[in-house]
Order: sequence, then C-alpha cells, then structure tokens
Amino acid sequence: MLHSHILFTASRRDLSPGLFEADPDNQRRQTRRKMMSRARALFIGLLVSLGMLLVGFDSWAVDRDKLLSDPGVYGTFAAYRVDADWARLEQSARIAHLTALKGVIEQYREKMAIDLYLLRGLSDHADILFRVHATELKDSQQFLVDLQASLFGKFLNTVAILHGLTKKANYVPGFPEPMKNDLKAPSESGPYAIVIPIRKDAEWWSLAHDKRAAMMQEHTAAALPYHKTVKRKLYHATGLDDFDFITYFETAKLDDFQSLILALQQVKEAKHNRRFGNPTFIGTVKSLDQLIETLAQ
Amino acid sequence: MLHSHILFTASRRDLSPGLFEADPDNQRRQTRRKMMSRARALFIGLLVSLGMLLVGFDSWAVDRDKLLSDPGVYGTFAAYRVDADWARLEQSARIAHLTALKGVIEQYREKMAIDLYLLRGLSDHADILFRVHATELKDSQQFLVDLQASLFGKFLNTVAILHGLTKKANYVPGFPEPMKNDLKAPSESGPYAIVIPIRKDAEWWSLAHDKRAAMMQEHTAAALPYHKTVKRKLYHATGLDDFDFITYFETAKLDDFQSLILALQQVKEAKHNRRFGNPTFIGTVKSLDQLIETLAQ
Amino acid sequence: MLHSHILFTASRRDLSPGLFEADPDNQRRQTRRKMMSRARALFIGLLVSLGMLLVGFDSWAVDRDKLLSDPGVYGTFAAYRVDADWARLEQSARIAHLTALKGVIEQYREKMAIDLYLLRGLSDHADILFRVHATELKDSQQFLVDLQASLFGKFLNTVAILHGLTKKANYVPGFPEPMKNDLKAPSESGPYAIVIPIRKDAEWWSLAHDKRAAMMQEHTAAALPYHKTVKRKLYHATGLDDFDFITYFETAKLDDFQSLILALQQVKEAKHNRRFGNPTFIGTVKSLDQLIETLAQ
Amino acid sequence: MLHSHILFTASRRDLSPGLFEADPDNQRRQTRRKMMSRARALFIGLLVSLGMLLVGFDSWAVDRDKLLSDPGVYGTFAAYRVDADWARLEQSARIAHLTALKGVIEQYREKMAIDLYLLRGLSDHADILFRVHATELKDSQQFLVDLQASLFGKFLNTVAILHGLTKKANYVPGFPEPMKNDLKAPSESGPYAIVIPIRKDAEWWSLAHDKRAAMMQEHTAAALPYHKTVKRKLYHATGLDDFDFITYFETAKLDDFQSLILALQQVKEAKHNRRFGNPTFIGTVKSLDQLIETLAQ
Amino acid sequence: MLHSHILFTASRRDLSPGLFEADPDNQRRQTRRKMMSRARALFIGLLVSLGMLLVGFDSWAVDRDKLLSDPGVYGTFAAYRVDADWARLEQSARIAHLTALKGVIEQYREKMAIDLYLLRGLSDHADILFRVHATELKDSQQFLVDLQASLFGKFLNTVAILHGLTKKANYVPGFPEPMKNDLKAPSESGPYAIVIPIRKDAEWWSLAHDKRAAMMQEHTAAALPYHKTVKRKLYHATGLDDFDFITYFETAKLDDFQSLILALQQVKEAKHNRRFGNPTFIGTVKSLDQLIETLAQ
Repeated sequence: MLHSHILFTASRRDLSPGLFEADPDNQRRQTRRKMMSRARALFIGLLVSLGMLLVGFDSWAVDRDKLLSDPGVYGTFAAYRVDADWARLEQSARIAHLTALKGVIEQYREKMAIDLYLLRGLSDHADILFRVHATELKDSQQFLVDLQASLFGKFLNTVAILHGLTKKANYVPGFPEPMKNDLKAPSESGPYAIVIPIRKDAEWWSLAHDKRAAMMQEHTAAALPYHKTVKRKLYHATGLDDFDFITYFETAKLDDFQSLILALQQVKEAKHNRRFGNPTFIGTVKSLDQLIETLAQ
Repeated sequence: MLHSHILFTASRRDLSPGLFEADPDNQRRQTRRKMMSRARALFIGLLVSLGMLLVGFDSWAVDRDKLLSDPGVYGTFAAYRVDADWARLEQSARIAHLTALKGVIEQYREKMAIDLYLLRGLSDHADILFRVHATELKDSQQFLVDLQASLFGKFLNTVAILHGLTKKANYVPGFPEPMKNDLKAPSESGPYAIVIPIRKDAEWWSLAHDKRAAMMQEHTAAALPYHKTVKRKLYHATGLDDFDFITYFETAKLDDFQSLILALQQVKEAKHNRRFGNPTFIGTVKSLDQLIETLAQ
Repeated sequence: MLHSHILFTASRRDLSPGLFEADPDNQRRQTRRKMMSRARALFIGLLVSLGMLLVGFDSWAVDRDKLLSDPGVYGTFAAYRVDADWARLEQSARIAHLTALKGVIEQYREKMAIDLYLLRGLSDHADILFRVHATELKDSQQFLVDLQASLFGKFLNTVAILHGLTKKANYVPGFPEPMKNDLKAPSESGPYAIVIPIRKDAEWWSLAHDKRAAMMQEHTAAALPYHKTVKRKLYHATGLDDFDFITYFETAKLDDFQSLILALQQVKEAKHNRRFGNPTFIGTVKSLDQLIETLAQ
Repeated sequence: MLHSHILFTASRRDLSPGLFEADPDNQRRQTRRKMMSRARALFIGLLVSLGMLLVGFDSWAVDRDKLLSDPGVYGTFAAYRVDADWARLEQSARIAHLTALKGVIEQYREKMAIDLYLLRGLSDHADILFRVHATELKDSQQFLVDLQASLFGKFLNTVAILHGLTKKANYVPGFPEPMKNDLKAPSESGPYAIVIPIRKDAEWWSLAHDKRAAMMQEHTAAALPYHKTVKRKLYHATGLDDFDFITYFETAKLDDFQSLILALQQVKEAKHNRRFGNPTFIGTVKSLDQLIETLAQ
Repeated sequence: MLHSHILFTASRRDLSPGLFEADPDNQRRQTRRKMMSRARALFIGLLVSLGMLLVGFDSWAVDRDKLLSDPGVYGTFAAYRVDADWARLEQSARIAHLTALKGVIEQYREKMAIDLYLLRGLSDHADILFRVHATELKDSQQFLVDLQASLFGKFLNTVAILHGLTKKANYVPGFPEPMKNDLKAPSESGPYAIVIPIRKDAEWWSLAHDKRAAMMQEHTAAALPYHKTVKRKLYHATGLDDFDFITYFETAKLDDFQSLILALQQVKEAKHNRRFGNPTFIGTVKSLDQLIETLAQ
C-alpha cells in the first residue's frame, strides 16, 4: 500500500521531464496510474480510518434525527473557499491535516449534526459547505472556530455563513386535510443539494396572516407534485443574517427540482421575494471520507 | 506550566508523522491533549494576567455606565478580519502580541468604554468586533489607530467602521404613560450580540414629526413584548457613515430576538427602511481574556 | 527543433542586457525571433501532440452531436482567470502542465462534450471558458474538480460557473408552420462565441402560458432574420444558479449578432428581463491545441 | 535623542520574551515607554523637519486662499489604503520614505493647494485622504502620479479619486438679501472633515431652473442654522466621475453636522438624490507633520 | 548619459541613510536630482528610441484616419491596473520590458489604430487605458493577448474591456440641414479623454424609431454649443458587453465638457439611461513614449 503510494507520487512527479526524452515506459505508466488512482482512494480511505482509530472518538452520540426534524433547532450553513496554497502542500501533509479535521468534526458530532457538501465544480464562489444543526448557536460557533483553528482550517477562507431557526409549520395547520397528508409522505434525498436564501419585501410582512396563509397554500399546492422526488427543509433567518428564509433542497432528479422552482416562481407569493438566491449554493452531498479524499488529491 | 505548554506544542507537531508509522503512544497522547487543551486555556489565561501585572494600568477609571447610558456619546463599531498570516505565527509570538493588545485596550479604557465581540463562526465578513463609546469621536479614532499600530493590529484588516451618536429618545415623550413605564424596565443581556445598521428612505425624512411619532409608537408597541429578554440600544448615524441608524441588540434568547425583528418588520415604519442590515453583524460578547484566548489558539 | 527552442528562450533572456551595450547582433536577432515565434508554435504543437501520443486516450467516444442537440442535457459554463504566477513559470513546466490538462480533457471527452473558448482580450473578468455538456451534472462536477486538481488547474481561479438544462422548445409547437420551418434551417457557426445569462422578473413567470407564448412568437419573429448567420442555443437555468436562462451565441458576423440583440431588446418580452448579461462573456472558439498554444506562450 | 530612540525600539523588541521570565524591570520599562512615546513623537518630528532642511523647498508659494475660494478651480479627492507591508518596514526606512513624501508634497505646494486627512479609525475603506486644488486637472494628475512613484507611494493602494469643479453659486443670486448676507458670515473649521459625494436623479436635471432654485432656497434655509459651526464647500462633479456633486464639510461640532445632514434630508430636493454618500469619507484634518508622525509609528 | 543614470540611482539609494548622519552634500544632491529628473526623461527617451531602432518596425502602415472615421469598425477600450510588483523592479528591467511593449504595439499598429491614455491620478480603478480600432474584433483580441504575454504585460491586471461598433449616424439623416452642417464642423481634441459607457432602459428600445429620433434631435441640439471644443465619438456596444453605447470624449476645456454632460442630462432621452458611467474613465492622452516614460519612473 504505502509502496504503491510512493510509486504513485513518483510517477506523477516525473510526468513533466517524461515529455522531453521520448519515454517508452510512459504508456504503461498511464495504465498503471489509472489502476492506482483507484488504489489511492482506498489508500487514503485507509489512512484516515487509521487516523480515526488513533483519534478514536465514539461519534454520533447525538440524536441526529431529532436535530434534523425538531423545531427550535438552529441550522448554520458555512461555505468556504480552499486557499490556493492548499494545493501546493505535500500530499502527506494534506492527509495529516485532513485527519485532524476529521478529529474535530467527529468530536463535535457528539453534540450536533454536521453535514458536508462539495460545491467545487458546481458553485463558483465556494468549494465546500458545512451544514450544522445545533440547539444553541454558540455551539455551532465554537465548532466553526475550532474548525478554522485546525491545521486544515488555516487554509479555509470564509465565503458565507447563514443561519436559520427551524419552526413548527406556520401555515400548514390551516391547510385542508388531504394536503396535510400529502405533506406527511417521505421525500427521496439525493446526491444533489441546493441552498437558496430568500428575502421577502416589506409588503409581505405587512400583510395579514390569513392573506399570507392563502398565498402559502397556493405555494404549497404548486410544490406538492415534486414532494416525493425533492426533499425540502425551511429555516427562518430573519435577524440572524440578511435573509428571511434559507431554503434547502436535496434531490436525485435535478430536472424535478428545476420544475419545482419554476412552479414556485409562478404563484403570487413569489412577487414578494425581494431577493431569491444571490448566492445560490449547489453541490453534492458527501460523506466525511469522500470529502477528505477529494481534498487530499 | 511552561513544561506542559512545551509538551502540548510538541504533541501537536508530531501529529502528522504519527500517521505513517503505527504509533501506540498516540492513543494516550490523544487523551493527554484533551486534558491539555483545558490546561492550555488556563495557561494562556495566566500568561496574559501575568502580562497585565507587568503592563499594570489601573483600568476602568472612566465611568463606563455613564458612557453606556448618557445621550451625546459616540458609539463606534469597528469590525476586523484577522489576516491569514496570524494563524501561521508561533503561539508564543501570538501571546506576546495579544498581551500588547491588552495593554493598548486597558490604557484606553481609562477614558472610553470598549466592548469586544467574537464574530468568527457566526458572521462571514469579519472575525472580531469592537464597540467603543467615547464623548469625542477623535478619541475613538486615536484608539483604533493605536490598535492598528500595535503588533497584533498589523494582522487586522478593517472590514467596517460604523458610527452613531446616542440621543435623548426622540418620540418617547409623546408616548402614553404605561408605555413609558414599560420602557423603563431593565432588559436582560446575553451572550449574543447583533448589530443591524439601517437607512431610511427619503420619504421617511420628509414626513411631519407627528406622523413619524405615530409610526414609532406602533413600532415600540410591537417591540415591547421582547423588552425583557432582548436589550436594545440605538445610535444615530446620519452623516457619520452611509446609514441613518445603528441598532444594537443583546440577548440570551435568539428566538425572542428573531420574533422581535419579525414584529418590527410588520409595522408601517418598516416600509421606510431602504436598507436593513447588509451587513448584519452577529457574534458573542467576550471578555478581553476570552477573546485573547480564542485568538491565541 | 529542441535546439531552436533553446535559441528562442535564450534570445528572449538577453533582451534586457542587450539594451545597455549597443548590440550589433540584436537587429538580426529580432528578425530571427519573428521566424522563431512561428517555429515555436509548431514546436509546441508537436510537443503536445507527442504528449498526447504518450497519454494516448481514444477520445470522442461519446456522441457529441447527440449531447449538443438532445433535450435533457446539462450545459455547464465554467469561466476561469489564469493566476499571475502561471506567466512566471518556466515554459517547459507550462508545456508539461498543459499536456497533463490535455490528458484530463481527452479522458472526460469519452463521456461528455467539452468546448473551449479564449476570453482573454475580449472579456475583462475571465481568461478561458469551458462549456461542458453531460447527462448528469455530477459528471461535469467530477470533470471540473479533476481539472482544478491537475497541475495546470492549480493556477485557475474560478470566476463563474453557470448551469442550464436543455429542453424541448417550450412555445414553438404553437408557432405558425412557416416559422417552424425557418427555425429548422441550419445556422453558421463562427469564431466568436457570446454567453448572456438572463433573469426574468416575477411578473413574467406569473403570466399565463398563452401570453408568454405570444410574446415569444414576437421574440422569435424578430430573431429570424439572423437565424442563418448567428447560431443560438438556450439553457434553462432556474434554480441551478441565479439566472433563469443562459443564452449562447456563435457567429462569424458580430454585426449581425449585435443587430439580433438589438431586435430582441425591442420586443415586449424584453421588458421582463430583470437582468440581461452582467456578466456577458465574449470570446473566440478554440481547439484544445490552439488554447494550449496560447497558454504556453 | 537618537539614543532614546534606540532605547525605545529595544524596549519594544524584548516585550515578548519579557513575558516568559518574570521581569522586575518591566514595570519601570512601562513607565519609561509612556514618556518615550511622547519623546518619540518629538524625535520623529525633529527627523522630518531635519529632512525638510535637507530637502529645503520654499513652500506655500501659491496663493492657497485664492485656490480655496475662487470658482473655476478643480478639487480632487484621492483616498488611499496603506499597504500591509508598510507596517513591516523598519521604522528608519518608514521615516526616510515619509521625508521623501514630504519633499514631493512641498514641491507641488508651489503651484497647488494640498490638504491632508487621516481617515484610518473613522472610515473603513481608506487610511488617508488628499484634497488637491489646482486650476488644471492635469497638474493634480501629475502630483498624484509622482506621489505614487515616490518611495512611500509604492505602498499606497488607490481607493477612490473624485473630482469636482468649483463654480459661482448657481441659485444664490435669486435668494432674498438677508439670506445672502447670512451666507457671507464665516464658518468655523474643525478637526473633523466629511466628504459626501451625491448623484441626482434624471428628474432633477429635467426640472426648470426656477423650480430647482426654489428647492435650493428651501435647502439653504434648512442649512443656515448650522452655517456658523459647520463649514461647507461644493464641487461640481458631473462627467468627471460618477457623481454630480462632491460636498465637503469641516466642523468641530459633529452633532451640529449631523443635525445639518438631517435637516437637508427633510427638504424636497433630497428626494432627487439617487445616491448620497456610498462612500462617505470621514476623518480628521492633519498637518503634513502630524500625518507623517502617525504613518511613521 | 549612462554615467548620469548611475549617479541618479545612486543618489536615490542613499537618500534614507542620508537622514541619520547630518549630510552637507545632501543640499547639493537635491538640486542635482532636480536637473537629473529632466536628464532621466531624456535618457529614457533615448533608450526606448534606441530600443526601437533595434526592434525596427515601420509603423503606421495602416490607414489610421480611415479606422477612426469609418463605420463598421470595432473600438475596444481595455483598462489595466499596473501590479504593485512593477514598482519594485530594477529600473533597467522596467525599461527593457517597456521597450518590448513598444515592439508589440508598433507591430500591431501595422494593422490597427492604437491610442494610449494615462488614467493614474485621475481614475481610481485603473492606471492605463488602450483604445484599439480594428475591422475584426479577433485582431484586437490577438493584440491584447500578445500584450499580456509580453514581459510588461505580466504586470497588468485587467480592469475592464469594453467593445463597440462604429455605425453610420442613426438619426442624423432626419435632422434639419443647418444642424447637419454644424455637425460637420471639426472639433478640437485634447489632452483630456473621458470614456462613459451607457445602458438604456427597456422602454427606450421599445419606442418607435421616430420617437427616438425626435429625442436624439433634442439631444444633439443640446450638445451643439460644445461641438467645437469637445470631440465626441460613439460606439454601439449592445451584446458585445453589458452596455448599449460607449461614449468617448476628448477636450482641452474640461469645463465645457462638464457643461456638455449637464446639458445632455437635461433632455428627455437622458431619462432612459439605466446606467451612465459606473465606471467613468478619465485620463490624459499620451504618446507611447510619454506613457513609457511615466511607467519607467
């Protein structure tokens, strides 16, 4: 394993000189690299698992499902750009830093739910996104402060930090029974995650509750056809940042997601969106090991 | 103490090599580090207190309460991002720089009130915030100039500087007696602090005083239910920066704070907010020692 | 060849000293360089082709035409600025990095369509643009992630990433037959490519379908005179980024393109463009070898 | 003197080690530093005056008062941020660079009026501001080009350059006599200076002259109560930058200045301000020596 | 010459030490430097001319006047900021790089018209501006790509690139004869140049041609009084960047230019400017040698 790793970085290193003297071995090396990039993934995976053995926290102590479903929970979305210097580090250093990162995350997963997303290649303003659920916002702050203080964190530039509070559905109680039932059906989650912050206009807030309830019923009816294939979660942001809502989506069918957003743009309530997106974050859900593997390359 | 400190930085240093040769001691070292991070906090605390003994100003000479309650006082909000190079300094250098910082702050606390906030992890555009109250704005300038000239200050990038003047309540005199009494009740302060600058539209300023007074009474009535759990302070900014007001909030109950902002968005006066936030600063109140400890890590 | 290359870089190197002692050879050297810059192009071309022999993927396995014409395909536009450090690299290093880049692109061309554009000199915010067509957006992400992880990619700063989904024409079915036929005629493509993202206003989306169809028919009629000389392609972006559409144009006659845009600004539908461009990307279509040659210089 | 200077930098240097061995001398050193920072100011002052003796221009040849009062003079406001590298220079180098700066400024003061302001600590987007009055804008350009070419100038990042032309009062001739007389009274100047650029809306410019005159009379009446304590100067910027006016204020009573701006926001003419500030520059008037002393620290 | 050059850089170098030992020679050296800065200008001029002899292109082959007067020509405005590292180069290196720049420009002047402007000191967002006229936009791209690939170009950061197409006057044919004649009179050019890009609103484009023609006649009538002292040139930008027009002005009388812009803001057509300037570029026309001299210092 370690040996193959050395071979790999070696083969990578003499790629450029390899261009100037005609190199018969290069063809073979190409094929070798292909196999190896798979081998490498395994190798890194093993290294970080090994790292975890050493770090050895018993993670997932917290009831993740409760945090993700209960009202009164703070959701924090922290997007970062990875500094250019990171790519210039020795891979061994990168792996060490990432193992330290894993330690920090596992430690905090004891009291909060932490989800990870790869934005690079899909979003232009950030590379990675953390979604943190905690009952106290200062716990999320402590996590992100320790994250930035970690060896890996020193290479992170903060792009955006958004916060929202989960609440009991505001208008649903007044909805007709069948609609309520439809909303109870489970939604499929998927590799794609999209975060769209929204700010309403002053007029929206000045409307009577029943007026808003009626518009939200129209909004919900328009969204229902996509309830099964697009998972949605709503966070109330007013006062915690410059938005009123953070809307979070997960799906395997991006075309359904797009149809959903188009449907939501056609209802009256949409006219009260002073700001919709700007920024929009789009990426893919990753496990910690998957994210580490990408960042280690 | 000093010894444990050396041990600590040592243990940190050989973390990465520790990954490649399977390391039996590492398990133990992990546990040791846990204890040590607590030890370290104490250690740093001691160092800076020691530093203070050496610096030895008699602080708090100024009547802080008067500055925080009187009209005619200038409040300055200065937000900074800590330069990436800071994290790459030797910890001993960081501690020395921070002790010098402590000296500067203590010196100025003789004539002004200085409050500190940690924004990192909650706000995306800045790491720390200073709130300065002084009777002359040029004193605040002198403090911030000396702050930036300090060894630590050379690592600070100015993100935002906002100013406002405290004034006698503008509309309250015309409010009904019970409302006036309610406003006299004390508010709880809390770990969370939020700063929201506001700019009104041209129409607002062209309204007759009684019209504005009526709207502000509606505004105040909407805010009263949260008077106990959310502390508010108002600064008049017009002309001193690009805002008309800087609203400052402190609370232990962020959900009450959010309900307060929602309530304030629903009154007529809210329609005259041309700009509300952008930026919004959210962070936690810190003592100088707490802030130094965070920055030293 | 290699020799002439050495001569070239040599002649370049002693240009500055050459200024201080009057240098009789310099005149000759100037003429020599002219010939050589042509020679150099050939030389680089050869090097990268050689590189490709070594890398040796069989490219174009994917049915490019289908990806470029079918509905349900995701088009990703990724614009990058080349880091200033790139220009400071040894040319040999640059060539090696670019050959690695060629390897990455050829590998992915097995399953997606990748087009390249040179923006430098025509657009101010980016140097190069990739247009990627794939049936799954996560494949495009994987390509762009590997691109950034490549030796060349470490010098790329992401400027913008826009996504859109191709769909069956929305309104055309209702158009009169002659118009439908005209739309079937082929369009000439050309060296110039322009990307203009568009965001519609809330009112547009709230209009009934037939109202929008009527406006789009007027829009199409205004565009038809330029159908032959300006190639257009439409991507539906809603929800995937902060735009509703990404409009892509290719032409050899920029004045016709300009007349087209002017015509489109004069129809009713144009009043519903909340954002048109900002940014607008304008550049020239390049083959991979042409782009590599430009970046190698 | 020189000796005390060496002592000073010495005492500064061993501040950090001084923290680790308990240091009895430190107490004394603290007090010493206090005296010395005063001593240092004197010392720097002497150095630069000495520098000036060596540079030795006879400054103030130009009739400064005429430039500041005549119509047809161009006022340029150039705001700069001092580069972070500046703070890392040896103090001796800083002093040398600043003396060179002083030379450049004194040289140009022969033909133009140059005023200096410290923005650091009060404005967030710039550290220093130059106000230049000249009869030809290309003279101001030559000064600022030479300023940037100076040893100190290489550390300046241009933040904003605004230009305006002074003109004979546009509407005053039509004002009632008493108002005209009041306007002739002198205004006190003060340590505070504020620069607020303004852009009017299209409607304002389309109004008939008498309509604008009437509004400007209301504007002037609202401003008169603050005429004595707040000095104002108006520059016509249209076409020279992205504003229509640059309004300049000087005062010792910031609360009067704020009342003035509030009063001006309440008149009809204020509704035609499409942009007011953004940026607003606030700082303190400094002599060249005072500014140099601040920058030398 | 060379000798005086060495003296010069020498005298510059020991400026700072010169401050610490009282230096009797310094007075003399000051005067010497004054003479020398003039000598230096000559010296650099000679060096670059010498450089040109060596480069030796026969420039101005292209019919510059035709390019500047014909319709169907593309005008490109490319604004750059010079990197801070440039100022830190040895002057000899700077001169060499600039001579190479001169070579590139002379080469391209064989097929396009290239004008140069110094923005530094007058505009805050860029230092230099190139105006390029070519019959094919891809030729302008090739020039700017080669410019950036030159030794000097590596120190240029692209700030803005705007394009416009010259066209036959759109509305003039319908103007009354006397107005047409007045428009035929020549305009004075001179040292000042201003570039103001404009974007019209959707309503403008939806107006009937005769409505726009009537407004443009009012616009032209308002501009005529300044026709003699302010030279104007119009470029049609729609689709080529985010503007509809790029308006270019040259004048020796900036006050006339300002009166012109004020006059143009007062006609109905001005209400259809959605964006006017932002950015506005203001600078002075420079010959290549003048620009090189400024950049060499």
